[in-house]
Amino acid sequence: MLGNTYRDQNCSIAAALELVGERWTLLILREVFLGTRRFDEFQRNLGIARNVLQSRLERLVEEGVLRRERYHERPERFEYRLTRKGVDLWPVLVSLMKWGDKYSAPNGAPVIMRHIGCGGEIDDRRICAACGKHLEANESMPELGPGALAAV
Amino acid sequence: MLGNTYRDQNCSIAAALELVGERWTLLILREVFLGTRRFDEFQRNLGIARNVLQSRLERLVEEGVLRRERYHERPERFEYRLTRKGVDLWPVLVSLMKWGDKYSAPNGAPVIMRHIGCGGEIDDRRICAACGKHLEANESMPELGPGALAAV
Repeated sequence: MLGNTYRDQNCSIAAALELVGERWTLLILREVFLGTRRFDEFQRNLGIARNVLQSRLERLVEEGVLRRERYHERPERFEYRLTRKGVDLWPVLVSLMKWGDKYSAPNGAPVIMRHIGCGGEIDDRRICAACGKHLEANESMPELGPGALAAV
Repeated sequence: MLGNTYRDQNCSIAAALELVGERWTLLILREVFLGTRRFDEFQRNLGIARNVLQSRLERLVEEGVLRRERYHERPERFEYRLTRKGVDLWPVLVSLMKWGDKYSAPNGAPVIMRHIGCGGEIDDRRICAACGKHLEANESMPELGPGALAAV
């Protein structure tokens, strides 16, 4: 969380950054969009310190971006799922990804998002380049791109 | 800048956050999009510490998101302008703004972005709701929204 000055700005960008501008938070959300749900999976995929991960997840739950759901009783174990408010951050992730693809991916995009319906590539307005449909998060699927293959 | 683990991720979102995930950076860019160009204006509009502002601006220039242009010779004074790489961050700002409008603006959006050409409202895909044009940053203009008026 930034200082008071920052919070007091009457600005929706500042308000959004209050939450998602915290380090790691958008990468945690990226993981959730890719299907990660459990603490140990986040920890392994992100290589993030456990205490930092714990505090970020708690904050996201408090803010209503993620919800905790019990999947095991004894011992109690929870997984994290996106709420509607969380799903609505998909455009933020797509716009960051597209900018990173353009300026920080010398071997090409590591991930290509495709429209599940027709397989077309999803552009930076979240429109299918093949069929023109305006897409929602649940209509997209990630695929390894040239940048991922180059790294291997 | 986050730790190495974060940098080593082969992910365009992580790469983008390496730069714009720094505190204040996206708010500095918001200011530039609104026409702010000079150090003292950034400082006044953002209420940010001068040393932090200085280091964020320097980083943005190093990374090619902003360029410095001299507007006064003695003493030398510079202003900051967006490069193409900087302008290409417009979608990130729009997506953050729209999410903040939806979830953190109880009195309505503080700012409404309009298509200069026809005055239509710009949606979260950066499409004009009135004429349907797919818009670029230089085709948009900000207008005070209900949230701004409520605050006054």
